[in-house]
This record gives sequence, C-alpha cells and structure tokens, in this order.
Amino acid sequence: MELSKSLYSGKKGWLRLQEIISDYNPSGIYILVDENTFKYCLPVLLEKCACITEACIINIPSGEANKTVASIEKIWQMLTVGKAMRSSLLLCLGGGVITDIGGFAAATFKRGMDFVHIPTTVLAMVDAAIGGKTGINLDSLKNQVGVFAQPKSVFVFTEFLETLPERQKLSGYAEMLKHALTDSQDHFADLLGLNSPMNACIETAILRSAAVKIEVVEQDPSEGGIRKVLNFGHTIGHAIEAFSQKNDTDPLSHGEAVAIGLICESYISSKMFGLDRNNLAKISAHVKLHFKHYTIAAGTVDELLALMFHDKKNTDNTQLNFSLINNVGNPVWDKFPGENLIRKSLKYYMDIWKVI
Amino acid sequence: MELSKSLYSGKKGWLRLQEIISDYNPSGIYILVDENTFKYCLPVLLEKCACITEACIINIPSGEANKTVASIEKIWQMLTVGKAMRSSLLLCLGGGVITDIGGFAAATFKRGMDFVHIPTTVLAMVDAAIGGKTGINLDSLKNQVGVFAQPKSVFVFTEFLETLPERQKLSGYAEMLKHALTDSQDHFADLLGLNSPMNACIETAILRSAAVKIEVVEQDPSEGGIRKVLNFGHTIGHAIEAFSQKNDTDPLSHGEAVAIGLICESYISSKMFGLDRNNLAKISAHVKLHFKHYTIAAGTVDELLALMFHDKKNTDNTQLNFSLINNVGNPVWDKFPGENLIRKSLKYYMDIWKVI
Repeated sequence: MELSKSLYSGKKGWLRLQEIISDYNPSGIYILVDENTFKYCLPVLLEKCACITEACIINIPSGEANKTVASIEKIWQMLTVGKAMRSSLLLCLGGGVITDIGGFAAATFKRGMDFVHIPTTVLAMVDAAIGGKTGINLDSLKNQVGVFAQPKSVFVFTEFLETLPERQKLSGYAEMLKHALTDSQDHFADLLGLNSPMNACIETAILRSAAVKIEVVEQDPSEGGIRKVLNFGHTIGHAIEAFSQKNDTDPLSHGEAVAIGLICESYISSKMFGLDRNNLAKISAHVKLHFKHYTIAAGTVDELLALMFHDKKNTDNTQLNFSLINNVGNPVWDKFPGENLIRKSLKYYMDIWKVI
Repeated sequence: MELSKSLYSGKKGWLRLQEIISDYNPSGIYILVDENTFKYCLPVLLEKCACITEACIINIPSGEANKTVASIEKIWQMLTVGKAMRSSLLLCLGGGVITDIGGFAAATFKRGMDFVHIPTTVLAMVDAAIGGKTGINLDSLKNQVGVFAQPKSVFVFTEFLETLPERQKLSGYAEMLKHALTDSQDHFADLLGLNSPMNACIETAILRSAAVKIEVVEQDPSEGGIRKVLNFGHTIGHAIEAFSQKNDTDPLSHGEAVAIGLICESYISSKMFGLDRNNLAKISAHVKLHFKHYTIAAGTVDELLALMFHDKKNTDNTQLNFSLINNVGNPVWDKFPGENLIRKSLKYYMDIWKVI
C-alpha cells in the first residue's frame, strides 16, 4: 500500500471515511477515544458520518501514562464484549497515544482487524499517525512493545484542532519545523512565512508536513536507514524531555523539548557540516520567539548526557549517534559529534537567551 | 520464506541450530521454558548446543491456563531486564503454549525480534509450532489476541519425546491421524501400520505429519480457504473438549477430544460424501483401540451443539460449518451437514462402544 494514497483530508476525507465505514457491517464499527476526544471530537465525527448508526465506543484515560498493558487489555476486552470480528473496523480518534495503542490493539485482536487513524492533534497528524509504528510502553520504557502495522487510511480533519489547547499545537509545531528543516529551504521559508505556530495549524501546512514523513517512511518502512533523518532534534530533545519529566512539576511537552533539541542539533550541524550561520540564527530566533525559555543548569549537563546514552536509539557502540542537517533540506544520519560538541550545543542554547 | 525449508531435525538440526545461534551476540540468546521443559529439555539443549555460553532463561508456568496477558507481560519484562534487543534471538522450548506465547512475545518485543521454535511435544511438532499462528487467550477465549509471525526455523528433536508422558503423546497422535486422513490413503495406511501411537512418535512419521500442515499453510497462510481442511475433526472435537473442561474433574486432552471428533466427522463424511464404510470402520476401530471411551449422555447433545455454535470458527450465518473428507486423502471444507446428522454422528460414536 502506498501511504501517500491512503491519506485523506477535508471534504473529500469525510466522503472517503463514510465510504470505508459503509463497507463494514453497521454493527462492526468500534471507536477508540479518550475523555477529551470523547467530549470534543466524537460529536463532530458522528455528525459528519451519518452512516454510523451503531458503534461501540471504547474510552480510555488520556495521556502517555496510560499507554500501558492494562489499557490494551481493556481495549481487547471491550472489543471482545462488543463481539468485534476480524471483519470489523476500529476508528482511532485522538492524539498519538490513541493512534499508537489503537493500532496495536487492532493489529493483534484475533490476529488482525482493520483500523483507520483520525488524528486530532497536530503532533498525531504530522507524525504519530503516519508510518505504521504501533505500540505501548512497558513500565517507563516508551514503545517497548508493538508491531509495524499500517492503518487502512489516515484522515486529517483540521476542525478537530479548534478545540486543541495552544500548548499542544505548539508541541506538534516543533515536528513541523523539523520536517521543514529536513525537507527543503522552500518548505522552511514557507513555514516561517506563516508567522506563528498557531497560523501553521492549517490543512495545507499540515498535509505538506505529513508528506515529508510519508516520503521518508515509504523509502524505509522498518527504519534501516533514511528513516533516521526523522530523529533530527530528538537525541538531545528526548534527553531534555526525560529530564524535565523527572524533575519539573510542569514538565516540558515532547515538542517543547524537541524545539530545544532542534536548536542544539542545528548548532552541531553548523559546526560539523555546512549549515550556515544565517540559517542557524533564523532557527534559533524562531524557536526563541515562540517557545518558552527552559533553564539548563551547567550541573545538569552530565545527567543529560547519561540520558542520551540510555536512549536505545542513540548508541552505536560507545558513541552517541545523531541525525543532523548538512544544510536546510539536506539531512544526514549516523553522525558522531562527540561529547564536547554536545556540551557546547547545550551552552549555545543557554547563551541565545542572554542576547537581547 | 518457504516453511518447508525452515524445518530441521536430528543431527542436521542440531548443527543448523548451532549455526543460527552463533550468528547472534553470545549475550543475545533468550530461552523460554516452562517448569517441565526447564527440568527435562533445557539440559539436553544446553548439552547439544555448546555454543550457548550465556543465555537468559525465562520460565513461565506450564499449561493452557497460563497463556495469558499476565504471562506475556512477564516475558516482555524479562526480555527488558535481560536487555534483549531487536537483534537478539528467542528460543521457544516447549509445547504449544510455549510456542504460541513465545512467538507472540518475540513478534511484538520492540516491534519484532527473531525467534525459533523447538517443540518438545508431538502436538507442537506436528501442529502448534508450524504455520505462524502466535497468541494468547483472553479470559476463556482461546487465541483471542495474537499475530501471524513466522519463526526463523522450527526444529524437530524426537529425543525430547522420551520424557513426554504417554497421554500427551496420544494427544499429539490424534493430530497425526487427522493429517494422514486428509493427506492420502498411503499416509493413513503407513501410520496405522506402525501399530500404536507410541510407535508413531518417531522422526520419520512426525516429519511426514508436519509436512502435511506445512503444505496446506504455504498454500493459504492467512486461512482464507484450503487451510480450513486442518479443522477436520475439530468442530465436534472442540465442543467436546470445552464440555469436558467444564464438567469433568480429569478433563479430556485436546487430542482425546479431537479423536472423538474424527470418528463423528468421519461418520458425517460417509453419509454426505464418498467416505466408504470400510475406511469409516477402520478409523473407528483404531481410535477405539488406543483412546479411552468417553461417555456422551443423550442429554448433553444439546449443550454440545450450543458449544459448536459458540465457536467462532464454525458459524457461517446460522449454519455449522464443517471440514470433512470426501474419502481418505480428499478433504473438503465449508460443508453444512445440518443438526440432525450431527446428532446422529454423536450417537454413532456412542454406539461403536456397544459392539463387542
């Protein structure tokens, strides 16, 4: 299946979704939601898809902390109680947690039932719902268990973003920025031209961003090579995210941490490769304008480095593995900047806030 | 991958297994066992495979009752604690429960690590370990959750059968009988020519039986059509197994129930299709000789029919769906004998015990 042909949006999307649903027995529709999408998104879905006359609603608590074995067991049990069959359809209506766990539940229920993703956050639209990675966390280990399984289709309906909190939009925007930086100078310029993350939550910009991920994933579905470019900003970003979750009462979101990672890893890209000062300054200024300052005390850098080493994606023997950019639109991967340059990049992030 | 090329046995098998293991990092070997295979089979494996210098042993309680979400969570956690990676290898050493749950654990750990099956029961050698079905039970529902995933290889080592209880050999023998009946007149004659189920636990007979399943599965991996022939004897067999588990203090094994199913469904085959009286008599006499009598009271037939309707494999609209034989070696599927003939077949089973 070509991913690019299974992504639908807007009016055409609603028609296509109704077509798909109509192919299933009316009693064969299951909808996975959390308490937020139950309240804000499910009514919209039911209104737009009048063909859903019966559906079993499976409601799980929102948030990464609930992407657990207990939650997936509950989903399997609800599918069982609702008499789901391999010929039934699961609609995953929500953010990345819902699409990850819903995809895994569907791919394993009776050895595989169909599912579609209807992402309701920017992050899920441009990232989580694309690419066929499904799974759950095991204790504190993210996505430790799962399978690669493609949804029948992915639907981007930007009306769902109207009720999305601004901070969550910002979180998704960091991934849009990453996609633009790895894609092309044009894409980067156009995204910045929209002037703000909130303005970027429009269909054209989101579809363009999703298309970057789709193109990469189609070339490398099981992450053997080029898919690693999607990790740009994430080696440092993930470490900062983990540190913040452990230490802050109001921790950074994934995207907020990735935004910091993008600055640091752009700095490393400028030192190791051809990323020019002008673009580095543009990236830094843009993130600084829209994201809050996060203090990285000098004493915490060692802990951040330890967290980077701990992340399974990063280690190639004893070195930290980075995905960087040679310049905007020209990503490279399997690069090893070394500890000193990583420390300098974190210092660079702190220094840009000192300049007035 | 061709299944037939990934099945190894005997001396060649031990060499091939060592070759495969040597391809992995010495610390990357994980062995799933239950308390029985830990005691009786693991020492043999370690002695034969001197190349295993380090391995993480994952021991779960034996029996169908432990093919649960709790068990698979324990396996995932043990793989995590043991620092398993996608480049590690899981050896599933045991009967059908171990190969089913081990295959599912490996296929889902970090979205898929390699696994091989080393079945230690007749049933697992000729049936469970072949065909790529992996999974766990959900509450009382068998294999409700799982994926299709092929082991890297399957190894048949009949030395493991030396410590297998006779009743478990008998259980596997029922599936060998089914394979012979659906395969050819020759296969059936040769199997009966071995004179007893215990004599049939030899490598040549087991490999020939496994080959029947391999051939069918290769033609139809996801059970759309011809794979259904493997269900011969199982529509009635499963109902009797479920009934016995519910009502008897020492319930029938899977194979003991299937043996009864084979008699009943051979009777139906003789009434609906061309299975001749001579073969029907031969099958009945053979089962009668080697398996114990099980009493099916007239009053329980209604309950057995209800159980057949409840089994998800059997219902095609409102009729019970059977896989039968036109004659020995000539299987047919999607057949609907109707309730009366099913009742008569159960009566036939009871009647054969009356004849001296």
